[in-house]
Amino acid sequence: MPTIQEIAKLCKVSTSTVSRVLNNHPYVSEKIRREVLRVIEEMNYTPHFLARGLRTNSSKLLAVSVPKADHPFFAGLIKGISLQALESNYKVCVFQTFYCKENELELMKLLQNREVDGIILGALENLWDDIAPYLKRGPILMCNEFHETAQVPILCYNEFESGYTAVRHLIERGYRDIGFCFDTANSEAQNIRKKGYLAALADHNLPYREEWIFDGAFSILDGIRIMNRIHDLPEKKPAALFSGSDQVAAGLIKQAVNLGYSVPGDLAVIGYDNQPICRVTTPTITSIDIPVEQLGRKAVSRLLACLTEELPLKREVTLFPTELVVREST
Amino acid sequence: MPTIQEIAKLCKVSTSTVSRVLNNHPYVSEKIRREVLRVIEEMNYTPHFLARGLRTNSSKLLAVSVPKADHPFFAGLIKGISLQALESNYKVCVFQTFYCKENELELMKLLQNREVDGIILGALENLWDDIAPYLKRGPILMCNEFHETAQVPILCYNEFESGYTAVRHLIERGYRDIGFCFDTANSEAQNIRKKGYLAALADHNLPYREEWIFDGAFSILDGIRIMNRIHDLPEKKPAALFSGSDQVAAGLIKQAVNLGYSVPGDLAVIGYDNQPICRVTTPTITSIDIPVEQLGRKAVSRLLACLTEELPLKREVTLFPTELVVREST
Repeated sequence: MPTIQEIAKLCKVSTSTVSRVLNNHPYVSEKIRREVLRVIEEMNYTPHFLARGLRTNSSKLLAVSVPKADHPFFAGLIKGISLQALESNYKVCVFQTFYCKENELELMKLLQNREVDGIILGALENLWDDIAPYLKRGPILMCNEFHETAQVPILCYNEFESGYTAVRHLIERGYRDIGFCFDTANSEAQNIRKKGYLAALADHNLPYREEWIFDGAFSILDGIRIMNRIHDLPEKKPAALFSGSDQVAAGLIKQAVNLGYSVPGDLAVIGYDNQPICRVTTPTITSIDIPVEQLGRKAVSRLLACLTEELPLKREVTLFPTELVVREST
Repeated sequence: MPTIQEIAKLCKVSTSTVSRVLNNHPYVSEKIRREVLRVIEEMNYTPHFLARGLRTNSSKLLAVSVPKADHPFFAGLIKGISLQALESNYKVCVFQTFYCKENELELMKLLQNREVDGIILGALENLWDDIAPYLKRGPILMCNEFHETAQVPILCYNEFESGYTAVRHLIERGYRDIGFCFDTANSEAQNIRKKGYLAALADHNLPYREEWIFDGAFSILDGIRIMNRIHDLPEKKPAALFSGSDQVAAGLIKQAVNLGYSVPGDLAVIGYDNQPICRVTTPTITSIDIPVEQLGRKAVSRLLACLTEELPLKREVTLFPTELVVREST
């Protein structure tokens, strides 16, 4: 990585002149300013350097992107990220992509323009190849989402284990016909969770039916909708569901009871996230507890290490453990 | 309001020179640039002018502040704000104050540094007098919070009517001993809601007891905690609660049932916000429906009118109507 001395030498100016340019100090001629910036651009400075040096005033601002802020899981993640950032005197701004590639790229432009110091991706809408070029402008890391090759820190749950554990619990409770709800196949994390579900079924020689897999499962209303679909299934219905979300589980359970099913007698349901809603439904919801605040805090520490201690960005996968919390719904 | 011509005249430069300064164009001498900015500062330009003109590149970025993003009401507000902003090609970043004055002032600095074009306050932590000076740097409006004198657009609910309606409904159902939960007395909106509660009691000659008023009521866990306090009340217990939040209502109801009370027989509960959780508890929750997405969208339209159409900021209170939705909990 070039030093401020090397840039000064290449531009034939003093190091204090380079420093003035980097700090946008007024007493630099326009010609010299342009030349220094051109050389810096050509030498392709690393993100933390750019982030600290080229800004007039570092805003000490981090951005986090989530698909929707009104999902309790993401709301919890945002909270953990914000609390840790505040402790380090950084501000956090939250962007919602609404599952849209363009919105995610708009956020990247803030990094490009150095309006934010770094980005935490709570999901990934674009192909990684479309995001990677922005790493030249500032650090990016992935939190709650997985990617096979991205050369950045990745902090997420052991989704395979979660899926496997949930299904094994249902099997141990005597259920054999087990369905699966998930939000979107665009999420690599969700696909890994599904692999855990399928592996547990296969290991126990249990059937797998395409019509027991439900996508678009995000909310309480989705749970109600999916339960209506299950009720209308012409052939065999699942006797248990790994719902992938406490909200979905709450909707499934209430609608099942409304339609005359006994829960967990006729239908067992497992949620995901272990949110407080698990405690207020009747029956209460068995769920997978995930350390969401801890995940958010760790993501910020990792990003700040990159920004303030000049630790380089590299691929580094951290899998957080999850835990089954058994309640009445299974 | 001074025009660009007047500034040019005062500075003894051409209007295009003023324009170059405003757009941070390089071909202006440092001396002239300083003089023009000094005059602009002295003449106290209105926010939309500054916001458009002084930025090098308008980021087309709006900020919204909320106490916590993990409260479903604020999550819904953020969603409405973001959707409307996206339709107008603006981005939204969300800041959480965690009910802390300093965090709110940090956000104001982003407006001061023109890193955001305008701010929507979803709550107010500081005294208005500490916020008002930032209006010189960009537009601010209040959404979901009320203030007696602030000279900015205020969009909120008719909280008095909500409080009155909820309590009148309980009285019509035959309840006489009615308690009230709220989050914080720092919120003027909450205080107005409480006035509605008190007015309905007074109009029906019903008792009011200090020990039936519960503050710090935000979440499901708060609802559980408050129900435990009610259970332990040494003297008369309330027979109905206007809980001010669907989450609190869900916690109250579940814990009441756990403690052996019948809901609504022994205790009736009304929520607030009419969120999907009202449909999944047993019994389901009577609530006050508020048009949260519409509120968020309207706030953005009003802010953008100020930014793009140069409509000046002024005091302008818009009260959105609310509606009682009756379910099983009353």
